[in-house]
Amino acid sequence: MKVEILAIGTELLMGQIANTNAQYLSRKLPELGLGVYYHSVVGDNPERLKDALKIASARADIIITTGGLGPTQDDLSKETISEFMGKKMIKDDYSANIIVEYFKKTGKPMAENNIKQAYFPENCIIMKNALGTAPGFISEYEFDGEKKSILVFPGPPRELIPMYENEAIPYLSKFCDKKITSAFVKIVGIPESMIEKMLGDIIEKQTNPSIAMYASRSVVTLRISAFGDDSLIEKTLVDIRKIFGENIISEDNKGPAEVLVSLLKSRKETVCTGESITAGLISGEITSVSGASEVIHESFVTYSNEAKSTLLGVKCETLSEYGAVSKETAREMALGLYERTRNNLAIAVTGNAGPDAMDEKPVGRVYIGICYNGTVNVKEYTFAGNREAIRIRTTINALNDARLAMLNADKTSGNQ
Amino acid sequence: MKVEILAIGTELLMGQIANTNAQYLSRKLPELGLGVYYHSVVGDNPERLKDALKIASARADIIITTGGLGPTQDDLSKETISEFMGKKMIKDDYSANIIVEYFKKTGKPMAENNIKQAYFPENCIIMKNALGTAPGFISEYEFDGEKKSILVFPGPPRELIPMYENEAIPYLSKFCDKKITSAFVKIVGIPESMIEKMLGDIIEKQTNPSIAMYASRSVVTLRISAFGDDSLIEKTLVDIRKIFGENIISEDNKGPAEVLVSLLKSRKETVCTGESITAGLISGEITSVSGASEVIHESFVTYSNEAKSTLLGVKCETLSEYGAVSKETAREMALGLYERTRNNLAIAVTGNAGPDAMDEKPVGRVYIGICYNGTVNVKEYTFAGNREAIRIRTTINALNDARLAMLNADKTSGNQ
Repeated sequence: MKVEILAIGTELLMGQIANTNAQYLSRKLPELGLGVYYHSVVGDNPERLKDALKIASARADIIITTGGLGPTQDDLSKETISEFMGKKMIKDDYSANIIVEYFKKTGKPMAENNIKQAYFPENCIIMKNALGTAPGFISEYEFDGEKKSILVFPGPPRELIPMYENEAIPYLSKFCDKKITSAFVKIVGIPESMIEKMLGDIIEKQTNPSIAMYASRSVVTLRISAFGDDSLIEKTLVDIRKIFGENIISEDNKGPAEVLVSLLKSRKETVCTGESITAGLISGEITSVSGASEVIHESFVTYSNEAKSTLLGVKCETLSEYGAVSKETAREMALGLYERTRNNLAIAVTGNAGPDAMDEKPVGRVYIGICYNGTVNVKEYTFAGNREAIRIRTTINALNDARLAMLNADKTSGNQ
Repeated sequence: MKVEILAIGTELLMGQIANTNAQYLSRKLPELGLGVYYHSVVGDNPERLKDALKIASARADIIITTGGLGPTQDDLSKETISEFMGKKMIKDDYSANIIVEYFKKTGKPMAENNIKQAYFPENCIIMKNALGTAPGFISEYEFDGEKKSILVFPGPPRELIPMYENEAIPYLSKFCDKKITSAFVKIVGIPESMIEKMLGDIIEKQTNPSIAMYASRSVVTLRISAFGDDSLIEKTLVDIRKIFGENIISEDNKGPAEVLVSLLKSRKETVCTGESITAGLISGEITSVSGASEVIHESFVTYSNEAKSTLLGVKCETLSEYGAVSKETAREMALGLYERTRNNLAIAVTGNAGPDAMDEKPVGRVYIGICYNGTVNVKEYTFAGNREAIRIRTTINALNDARLAMLNADKTSGNQ
């Protein structure tokens, strides 16, 4: 089965956003044994969209469109696709009701044109939108005597992703003869190019299971996918564990914040952050995990030297002698935080996110101090990238260093 | 002139990378008055590439290809494009020499097939590659009796970008009669569908300038683009200002954090946050702006009731009578923060990000308290979406409420 991903949206053709939906879908579809052969992008223009649908129907079996489902007059995907398939549009009362309720709940007035989001081509499968007002749909139609399927998604990734996972996979699975199972191993603290080198010929020699790798926000994910026989995955996992050891943070696709919160919960312990360079991002990341309130009660952003002294008790002499971006300051931040708040785990970060060198420390230099039940450890990092990248890398590595401090304390006490 | 950007590379169809080259080129080409009408992606397969070239030649005047110029056997772009145009391949001695010298310089052995990078279709313009061994080229050819241009670039962005800037712009400039200029107006606090309604027929009637709209992270951006005469933009801006008034946060594409930091800098004032539901994200967003250290020194994450009392001085009776998620708590958080830290601006947020109702407050209920130079104001919101969406909406609206508090204080004092 050949798949074409057809994105609809002038904002892509203007370069305002990159086509990350096509990237996401291209990663996911092979898990169902479906090959992506083409990506295409057209603007919000009915004639050009119809021509693109003709081209796609001639060369692919399944067409996946993204975008153009909003309530505005620009958003013409649904109407144009229905017309192309020669199908009538019918109002779906269930969807109409959800849209009305959504606006009631938010207390915002509902514009008249929102209700157009409840119209769909006849005989389609409606895909629910858990996170917005625009449902998607799946239709089957004939083109040149052949049966084709079209899946129509909204453009925002946060709406598209759950819709794909929950609504599209059950439909697409019928095209898949052999079942694909996948394991997701997340690795932190080793750059992507180094991981590829460390994997050596495992990645090339393997065909079943196959190994794919992608990096996002300083976390590298290895996807190990097996066709048919899922016991093959466990064999590969054994090799991967030998290579990456404690840099593996999870084998079930959990991110660093989720892993740390689980670990704290299991020990009934709590965490607190003292953040300079990240100014709240680490605490924000921890609390992105639902139920984090069990393990985090408070945190401090200490951006200025004064705040580092007043709130965390860093000595003025330390700041003047070594600078705010130093191993010594990070150590005192972590220890002060631990002593003042009596949380089991104190995470402190200080660094230079740029654009200029600071206290003779280069852009990207970061110190992460972790104090776990009284034991402090500080690591020095030099991260590449722009301001945003340096702050994300600091956040992810701080969460990972905290996890390792907890696990290593375990080992030490186990050895005693 | 219609442009199509045709990317060649299986790694895009596998989702290993996003098509950021298409994004870059789509941003740059309008500066030369060239409109991008289509993006497409095909794999490294000669037959499918030839079909894609046919489709592109039929619907566009200028085709820009990216990728497939490397030395490996997979890289077939140049050969396939030459064959499609019906042109012979000829060795370019100057390019051959550069490749040989490159390998001498790096000390790496040169593989035989590297020399294929010195072959080009006859009568083309060679585009030098300052950062790699694969030069690009420009060819003109006839398709269905019409003259077409094709520009062939390597895939790596660090090679493509300087090649576009230095080698392609001089050629493409000859097509440029009228330039496009754009203004970007950002609006916060009104949903996208309502914005379209408020714009009324402005968006439909306008052809020059044209108005487009997109939403990201609770901020709606209007792009106003004029061909040729950029005074047309100012006329439309006057109308847009009348409609959206103080909900316009910027007319120069600046986001809410950037706008708030500029405002604070211009008044030599400082800000501090007391965050429950967002737990550091607002402070993190403010410090994403380079130079924010002038206006923010410290902040507090008060996730638990105890932290709200200890750190910000919220009364225990307030918490027990009204709950942590309440107007009263938000007010005391903002006021306590202001009084204890003496920053000019105190931003306090408390709310329920889900998954369950809390203190009888529904998921999505948020209170944002702003204290500016002693005057407190609290607003109640009910945000839709999942945990992440609610926290982002809280962050963006808190930044906007803070901006408005600063501006309105201005008006009040101006009236006195």
